[in-house]
Amino acid sequence: MPSPFDHAARRERLRHQLGALGVGLFLVSRAVNVRYLTGFTGDSTALLCLQGQELLVSDGRYAEQLQRECPGLEVFIRPPGVTLPMALGEVLKATGARSVGFESAHVSVADLGTWQGIVKDAEWKPCADVVEAFRRVKDDAELACIRRAIGMAERAYQSIEPLLDRVPSEAEAAAELEHLMRRQGAVGAAFATIVGAGANAALPHYHPKAGAPLAGSTHVLVDWGAQEEWGYRSDLTRVKAWQPVAGTPTLNAAHAAAVSAQAAGAEALRPGNTAGDVDLAVRAVLARHGVEDLFIHGSGHGIGLDIHEAPFFRPGNPQKLEAGMVVTLEPGIYCPGRLGVRVEDDFLVTNEGGVRLSHLPRELGLDLG
Amino acid sequence: MPSPFDHAARRERLRHQLGALGVGLFLVSRAVNVRYLTGFTGDSTALLCLQGQELLVSDGRYAEQLQRECPGLEVFIRPPGVTLPMALGEVLKATGARSVGFESAHVSVADLGTWQGIVKDAEWKPCADVVEAFRRVKDDAELACIRRAIGMAERAYQSIEPLLDRVPSEAEAAAELEHLMRRQGAVGAAFATIVGAGANAALPHYHPKAGAPLAGSTHVLVDWGAQEEWGYRSDLTRVKAWQPVAGTPTLNAAHAAAVSAQAAGAEALRPGNTAGDVDLAVRAVLARHGVEDLFIHGSGHGIGLDIHEAPFFRPGNPQKLEAGMVVTLEPGIYCPGRLGVRVEDDFLVTNEGGVRLSHLPRELGLDLG
Repeated sequence: MPSPFDHAARRERLRHQLGALGVGLFLVSRAVNVRYLTGFTGDSTALLCLQGQELLVSDGRYAEQLQRECPGLEVFIRPPGVTLPMALGEVLKATGARSVGFESAHVSVADLGTWQGIVKDAEWKPCADVVEAFRRVKDDAELACIRRAIGMAERAYQSIEPLLDRVPSEAEAAAELEHLMRRQGAVGAAFATIVGAGANAALPHYHPKAGAPLAGSTHVLVDWGAQEEWGYRSDLTRVKAWQPVAGTPTLNAAHAAAVSAQAAGAEALRPGNTAGDVDLAVRAVLARHGVEDLFIHGSGHGIGLDIHEAPFFRPGNPQKLEAGMVVTLEPGIYCPGRLGVRVEDDFLVTNEGGVRLSHLPRELGLDLG
Repeated sequence: MPSPFDHAARRERLRHQLGALGVGLFLVSRAVNVRYLTGFTGDSTALLCLQGQELLVSDGRYAEQLQRECPGLEVFIRPPGVTLPMALGEVLKATGARSVGFESAHVSVADLGTWQGIVKDAEWKPCADVVEAFRRVKDDAELACIRRAIGMAERAYQSIEPLLDRVPSEAEAAAELEHLMRRQGAVGAAFATIVGAGANAALPHYHPKAGAPLAGSTHVLVDWGAQEEWGYRSDLTRVKAWQPVAGTPTLNAAHAAAVSAQAAGAEALRPGNTAGDVDLAVRAVLARHGVEDLFIHGSGHGIGLDIHEAPFFRPGNPQKLEAGMVVTLEPGIYCPGRLGVRVEDDFLVTNEGGVRLSHLPRELGLDLG
């Protein structure tokens, strides 16, 4: 299938910013940004963007793949004995660029030193969020990809959900879910699937264990997502319960609080609000339920080619929301040794508030009367 | 299962180097190095190592996991509104350290700038290969993990290999192989599995496609590995042929050249030789077969917690081999549009040359008379 994206237009947009950035050349070395601008899916490859020239610097492993994925783009293949930073330094020098913008959050101190050692007279300008700013708002083609990634994840979960208590272990449930997503057309999981049973659900970034059974657990937390063909990702979390969990809060009360908090966050997903406003809306509901201290991470984040990208819903984050951002909201409540719940869905930011893109039921599955 | 590693001894070794590094504090921020030194399997967490103090800086998502995985280690949990670089800057300042060593190949220019903005009067010392140098030589416990990861990968391949021509697509073959590795106890694939049929095998870092069938192909190249419970990885490549491929070289001739080249490299895997010597030994055999120009990447690399780690078998690499290194050798021959072969096995460097740790047969599967 041909790419649904206009990579040349994205690069043109970058070229138009060179003046505003105050640089003659912008060096894109972060792999996911190279992919966004060129369609190239490999790594160890950088894009040089100048007025009137664009050039990929890569190595022999990728020579043919670059021809397929980036037809028409000029490519320099470094020889096996030359490292990428060294090759980039030499190519940068050959361009004669006097001022070079680079992605300072993704260039190591060592690589910058290598370049500076080779190109002695250039001015090096650290830049932040240049390509990331393009990526924050999704166009229709990107949104279609994310919707597909959500559908793959949802259908996979639906086929395993009724059987979860019969899966031998957390690790096998995770493996099975990832397998089912691939059968739905995913190129893989969007991130390492989390399956945590009982008290393991209290660890937000838990690794599922081969020795941890689901049968006999009070509940299980599943956090999973799919990556579709073009690299876009989904990110969902559901909790399925088999037995009530007593204490304060009960499992049921914790789950209800998370669902309400997510709804409040979704309501706040509109242009003009900041990411911090959304986080605050989520936390305010958890506070009303008396569980704010049991919520130990951010309220959500953007998704796209990265599983975690801007905007980040953290206290005080001043980033303004824009229509077309695609984000997750994932309030959670964690009681060590006893229970964990998290409710996570994917939303589109619109002028009317967040539109939920994921549609799996959120019931715990318990009939608590 | 309790960890088979003595993380405290590894940190003690690091503390003993502070003087030689000329720093009062060494900051470990590369996740895989934090894992090596502490057993912590998450990310977004850094280790500060001083004389008489060690401290992990993390966030609330990992608070309970850190207690489980790193019992007894002092942990500072940053609040949700404070980024890791900011929190690290504040903690570094509080230690009063006057000279700070950091992992310059893995610290971004932006993060260093954040730290320097907070800790105004410290000397910042870029350091390379500090923890990596510890990791290069594997101890018995690590070797046992890698052997297990190899076994998982081999058994998975053996169960799918006779059926490869009946798998509907490259993508399904990759998914099935990863699934089988998990059933063997792997926590996941060591890297994204490569399955390339026919001319797709000519792309060394190919992504398997859902629309690419195996049935009817001349041959398929499979590059895969497992990651076992403690994070150690295996890395293997095999080619299975169903039909001869004519031309120069033939599939059979290319494969035979790769097998011979690997054997020559293995012979060179002994202390005293450099990584460049090993690469040269591989290339010399390919040259003798007239296919050196069709070999477009390095000859191999170390494996361990990373899938690509030192030593790197590249032309001219002066790194000396040491007994106890675990490496792959992976000569390949690529004819765009026609065929690709690569033969990759895992070896232990010993005083008697490379000891092969992987044992899958390397026959193409063709009876060419």
